[in-house]
Amino acid sequence: MGGQEPTEGPLTDEELQLAARNRGMPLEALRYDITPTGLHYLLVHFDIPEIDESSWRLEIAGNVERPQSLSLEQLRNRPSRTMPVTMECAGNGRARLRPRPVSQPWLVEAVGTAEWAGTPLRDVLVEAGVRTDTAEIVFGGADHGLQGGVEHDYERSLSLGVAMRPEVLLAYEMNGRPLEPQHGAPLRLLVPGWYGMTSVKWLTRITAVTEPFDGYQQAIAYRYQREETDPGEGVSRMRVRALMLPPGYPDFLTRRRLVEPGIVPVRGRAWSGGADVVRVEFGVDDAWTDAELLAPLGRFAWRGWSFQWEAAPGDHVLSCRATDEAGNRQPLQQSWNYQGMGNNLVQTVPVTVGRP
Amino acid sequence: MGGQEPTEGPLTDEELQLAARNRGMPLEALRYDITPTGLHYLLVHFDIPEIDESSWRLEIAGNVERPQSLSLEQLRNRPSRTMPVTMECAGNGRARLRPRPVSQPWLVEAVGTAEWAGTPLRDVLVEAGVRTDTAEIVFGGADHGLQGGVEHDYERSLSLGVAMRPEVLLAYEMNGRPLEPQHGAPLRLLVPGWYGMTSVKWLTRITAVTEPFDGYQQAIAYRYQREETDPGEGVSRMRVRALMLPPGYPDFLTRRRLVEPGIVPVRGRAWSGGADVVRVEFGVDDAWTDAELLAPLGRFAWRGWSFQWEAAPGDHVLSCRATDEAGNRQPLQQSWNYQGMGNNLVQTVPVTVGRP
Repeated sequence: MGGQEPTEGPLTDEELQLAARNRGMPLEALRYDITPTGLHYLLVHFDIPEIDESSWRLEIAGNVERPQSLSLEQLRNRPSRTMPVTMECAGNGRARLRPRPVSQPWLVEAVGTAEWAGTPLRDVLVEAGVRTDTAEIVFGGADHGLQGGVEHDYERSLSLGVAMRPEVLLAYEMNGRPLEPQHGAPLRLLVPGWYGMTSVKWLTRITAVTEPFDGYQQAIAYRYQREETDPGEGVSRMRVRALMLPPGYPDFLTRRRLVEPGIVPVRGRAWSGGADVVRVEFGVDDAWTDAELLAPLGRFAWRGWSFQWEAAPGDHVLSCRATDEAGNRQPLQQSWNYQGMGNNLVQTVPVTVGRP
Repeated sequence: MGGQEPTEGPLTDEELQLAARNRGMPLEALRYDITPTGLHYLLVHFDIPEIDESSWRLEIAGNVERPQSLSLEQLRNRPSRTMPVTMECAGNGRARLRPRPVSQPWLVEAVGTAEWAGTPLRDVLVEAGVRTDTAEIVFGGADHGLQGGVEHDYERSLSLGVAMRPEVLLAYEMNGRPLEPQHGAPLRLLVPGWYGMTSVKWLTRITAVTEPFDGYQQAIAYRYQREETDPGEGVSRMRVRALMLPPGYPDFLTRRRLVEPGIVPVRGRAWSGGADVVRVEFGVDDAWTDAELLAPLGRFAWRGWSFQWEAAPGDHVLSCRATDEAGNRQPLQQSWNYQGMGNNLVQTVPVTVGRP
């Protein structure tokens, strides 16, 4: 990640710097089916690059019959597809781990759902004539920096099979408008169901390769590791997770919630990259009851849920817990890993019912 | 602020929670004259409220001859004015103070410039017949919570004189589109030149009063205080400040900049709420040289500056320092206050020239 060991200590200056430039989604924004652009979570490894759209090209090369150099206009003139997609940072939940891996210190808020529009990657690859002995497709961004002592452009790969899935897009619009710079303008990859690191922003080149890609962001970062020397397993699809809009109103500093006694409608969202969400449980002081699932927004978007909570005076801890169709269920205890990836430990919201 | 004393200790969990939901502007976004909506800084005291635009009304009442209840459509049908305005959080720089006041832990990034559109407040006040013995105008938002043990809606006041200034708007558009929820939809106050707490979001009521307003956000929060018991002085206009786009490229974790030796063009922005910026100095290891000021964007917007830096190999600390026409100049040493307001201490950017 960056050479620092996980710590039991307090937040470091480096983590504060990262928190000040990256952006979580305030949890009350869970009320929107589609997250307003300015509320979507944002994680930028290096700097947002400066790109001149008129001279920008997408280069498609490597193990292909017909290398391509496509302008934005050419991509926009291709068949388009629009869909709501929930995207989450693989590091979401990292700062809740003990010991805490030192990197962007997300609690639970690194998520958002946008209406993305673009052209299917598959057809572009077919037209380029990707050869049958291709193992992976490598996606390169214009963002450049140093991480873990390695200078590189941000690059990630997908197996040819995943890259050819029909829902994978070359996306140029978010919520009905051209991408804002921080979301990858003019073009980004969009891989629905996978954690956000997969959806390479500021995409400039696509390369078909015959051997597995071993770049920094693939082989070193974004691994589920027990310890630094463990090669680990690559991070891929989003783990199942539910979040709630914290009910009542907050204290500015502590964010503790104050709630009136009585029936309190609680709402939230749940998603999983691997399968449909089939169950959400609502927890009050560790007693669990099934919540009501609302109509799905789309195959790759979060699903709403609601619960009528009868709030009794006193201090309580509220939780929510999702299960997907493949049987994956959020853990009640942390599942630790060295980089702090995929920590879908259930959310807990301390509330005080009745006037304090 | 919230009952915690300033500390020499590390960042607290409360500060991390605030940093995860509020949003700074990544400094490379200083390259844009107008900050993309999703990159503008954001500070929300309580929760972003849920407002139904169709039933929303702006109520104008108190010491007026003709109380008003205006729909958004009525406000949009009034004369409109559009202008670029730089807005900064009064707490910008707080986390750089020693000891550190415990609240939203901004470093230097709580700023942005948008094209705001709305209708002048002055004409609305005149039509409502504000009486001549009015001392202040109180602006009330729909956001509600607890701060410092006091439950309240967010409210701030302006003297009648400031409220009647021609540049003060009731703003319904940002960057050519209706306000996104987090920026105050459907309507917010916009007071150019003043720190952001003045520009009340989710505006629902305007009340003319004959005595100075003593609400929490006016009389307790947003004060320049030496200590907690000091009544202090109200925070008002933005202090003079310059920021630079950090040159070169970053290390992901430390954000240290790596720069190639040679001539490096450095760019930045400078602003002051009190007077025009007339000078920006660029500092290399405490040696200062005047930077070039670029053409102004508007009376209330930041001004670009540039400097051709001859980067010699080695480690350096870069700085920038603005001066305004009223003679205000950024300090080289912290000017401490109890709430951590208006800390315009010069920015410092550590860089390494040549390969590390």
